[in-house]
Parts: sequence; structure tokens; C-alpha cells
Amino acid sequence: MFLAKAILEGADRGLGEALGGLLGGGGRGGGRGGGGQRRGGGGHIGGIIGGIVNFISEAAAVQYTPEPPPPQHLHFTTVEASESEEVRRFRQQFAQLAGPDMEVGATDLMKILNKILSKHKDLKTEGFSLETCRSIVSLMDSDTTGKLGFEEFKYFWNNIKKWQCVFKQYDPSHTGSLKGSQLHGALKAAGFQLNEQLYRMIVRRYADEDGAMDFNNFISCLVRMDAMFRAFRALDRDADGRIKVSIREWLQLTMYS
Amino acid sequence: MFLAKAILEGADRGLGEALGGLLGGGGRGGGRGGGGQRRGGGGHIGGIIGGIVNFISEAAAVQYTPEPPPPQHLHFTTVEASESEEVRRFRQQFAQLAGPDMEVGATDLMKILNKILSKHKDLKTEGFSLETCRSIVSLMDSDTTGKLGFEEFKYFWNNIKKWQCVFKQYDPSHTGSLKGSQLHGALKAAGFQLNEQLYRMIVRRYADEDGAMDFNNFISCLVRMDAMFRAFRALDRDADGRIKVSIREWLQLTMYS
Repeated sequence: MFLAKAILEGADRGLGEALGGLLGGGGRGGGRGGGGQRRGGGGHIGGIIGGIVNFISEAAAVQYTPEPPPPQHLHFTTVEASESEEVRRFRQQFAQLAGPDMEVGATDLMKILNKILSKHKDLKTEGFSLETCRSIVSLMDSDTTGKLGFEEFKYFWNNIKKWQCVFKQYDPSHTGSLKGSQLHGALKAAGFQLNEQLYRMIVRRYADEDGAMDFNNFISCLVRMDAMFRAFRALDRDADGRIKVSIREWLQLTMYS
Repeated sequence: MFLAKAILEGADRGLGEALGGLLGGGGRGGGRGGGGQRRGGGGHIGGIIGGIVNFISEAAAVQYTPEPPPPQHLHFTTVEASESEEVRRFRQQFAQLAGPDMEVGATDLMKILNKILSKHKDLKTEGFSLETCRSIVSLMDSDTTGKLGFEEFKYFWNNIKKWQCVFKQYDPSHTGSLKGSQLHGALKAAGFQLNEQLYRMIVRRYADEDGAMDFNNFISCLVRMDAMFRAFRALDRDADGRIKVSIREWLQLTMYS
């Protein structure tokens, strides 16, 4: 955290270097320490082009296409006529797991995840901690009930199924962790296209001192990244690649995660 | 997390209700699902006043005055002439704890914190997990080395000393957790003035199902909140109560924490 200063001081030398010299006015598009299209910019063509190239480069450098978000305000018992047999069975299983309030809290989630993990002998993991599960619940909790309803849980479950496949695919020797090109490939296979700086930061935060990321951290990282991409997209209503938030919104978004 | 939708749908009914009817044009200041002053707004006086009242209400509702941030780019061996004996001793202790690279990583931090906690019998706690310590390091890591240098560590340490005093003060019976008015009082005593919605969210995320927050979660929460307030302030260069970030900046700020 606290890259605020680093960002302001233009620490993204990677992007700067990539663009440096390419366009005469490219530097001017850097503005406030990041790329991004600027509205109402100056008349200088180079500056405008620089701004657009910055935006394209930035947009190209950091991408993710999430699954459609969980629909909100659907009562658990809403059964869609076209619902597949698989989803119907999942809904029944959820009803058993969730208990009387039909919502899954962090403690329930931890039990569910660890029960399932214990059956996957090829996934070497110590299991998920309550702390991780609290974070996951907050990240997935669109309607801020403090627990996951069926749709929220289904969204999470579909992602975790996909990501555990990716993890196994990139860890064929079952070492229990991903490192270097394995990790890079796995993040990409999971749909996340990151620039070099962001990738290094993720390794610093979620991998161990040897740069190896275990399954728990892989899932924690991806759940968070998925949620943060979606939050940004939801707030970027004019799709200009920038969002504006107040202190209250900022704290709500960053603390409840 | 994922309050982005809730924010957009104007879920902050508390603020809306407080202002509703107070001003004819107050509603217009709501804009994009949050308060905050709008530049270049419409000519309607009510709307402008509404916007200003929103801003004042919002600013008043969410406040924190952090300690001065750790100075950057100071080499560990920089010794200030006016440094007190206490700080000098702390520097020497840090040198012993930090090892040859003079930086404290998550594993070191975990050992340090748990060693010290074991001496505080009046603080009932299971100790800090590696996961929590990784988050703390990221939040405090201003220069993105992946570890804490002396100044970063000192800043964190001064806060934790202050906050453990607050925790003990509000848990006189040594139950090991804070709840209800104890928790509310403790957050305020630690310097955090939060509106009702934010407070409820924090309880949902960091307290257990009975609304009780233990020491580890109290510290995790405050470290994060301190960092997020500071990040916002650093980015809000025109001090208008709003910040604008690109996807890259957003991910850097939210993932490295």
C-alpha cells in the first residue's frame, strides 16, 4: 500500500520508458502520475496523441474480462425456468451448506473450502484461514449483508473452480506453488493481463520470499483482483478509464475487502 | 467489497435522509452516488448549497488526523542530531531485529509482534498470522521494497503502541475483545471519526458474528484505515475531497495492501 506517493512521483518508469521518445508530446499526457485520457486537454497535437497513446497503452497493459456479475435482489428461491440441472443441484447443495438464513458467512465458507480441498490431494495447501475467508466474503458481498447469498456464492464458486484448474495446469509436478513463468502464465490463463509493475507488486504481496505463490494466496489474490476490476468498471460510468471517488466511497471500497 | 453498485445506487440512505428536505436543491448534489463538491456545477443555488452541505457533512462524518508520514529516502544510518535517546535506542533495537538488509519482512514482523504480545498478558490474543503481517507490510511499505525500513517500521510501531493502549483502556476487564460502545469509543480514541455506515461496515468485516473485535483484527483494521486515509490525502492534491484514479493506480493502491 501507500503507493500514493510513488504514483504521484511518477514511479511507473516502465510505462514512461516505453513511451519516452515515441512521441514528442507524450510526456505531457502523464499528468498526475498515471496515464489515462484527459478531457479538455491542451491544443498541442502531440500532447493529445500522447494522452491517447498513454490511455491505449495503459488500457492494453491492464485488462481483465470478468464473468457477468451476480444478479442482485433475487431471492434464493427464485428458480429460473431455464435453469440447468447442474445449477439446480448446486442450489440444493447451497441450501444444505448455508443453513436457515440461506447465507454463507466466513466460518461456513472456511469449512466448505477446506472440506473440498481435503479431497484434492494434488493441491498441496494448508487450507484457508478464517481471515482469508472474511476477506473473500467482504469482496463478494455485493449487497453488504455480511454473508454470501446464493448468487454471490455461485459467482465465487464458478471462479474458484476455474482458477483451481488453472493452478493445477501450471503446477503439473504438484509442488503446491507457482513461480516465475508458471505464475505469469497462470495469471494470464485466469484472464488477468497485467503490466510488469503490477505483476511485480502482486508477487511482492502474495508470493513468498522466493517468489513462489501457494494455492491459498493465488485464490486470495485473484478473488481480490476480480473484485477490484469489477468495482472500477462499475464506477467508470463514462468509460474514460478513470474514476472519481470521495473519501467515504474510497474507505467503503477499500476497507470492506 | 463490491459496494461499487451499492454506492452508485445511492445506498447511503443515512446521508440522504439527513439532508432530505433540508434544502430544496440538496438532492442534486448527490450526483454520482456519493457526496462531495462538484466543480462547474449548475447555476441553481440550492444545488450548489446542497453540494457544499453534502461536502461538509461528508467531511465532518469521516475524519482522521494521522501522524506525520514516515520520511522517505533516508538511509537507515542517517542519525539526526536532535534524535532523542529513546529513538536512538529504538534504532539500535531495529538494527538487531532487521538483520543484514536493515529491512523487516512479514516473517520478521510476525516474530517481533508475537514475541512482544506474549509479554502482554492482559492482551488476550492468539497472535498475529503471517497473512496479517504480509498485509501490514504492504500497507506500510511506502517505497515498495517489499519490506519495512527503519522509518516505515517506526511509524508503524508508534501507531501500534498508541492503539494497544487504546485497546486496553476500552477493555478494562481484559475480555480480549471490544464490542458495541467500547469499540465505538476505541475507534474514536484512536482518532477515527466515522459515519454510521462506515462503522457498521467495519464491524461486519473485522468483528465476529457477535460484533466483538479482538486485538489482532483491531490492529489490522486500524493499520489499513490509517493507510487508506493517508493514501487519499496524498492523492487529493487540490483538497476538494475527491480523487481521480486510473485502473492501474486503482489496482496498485488496492492490491498492494
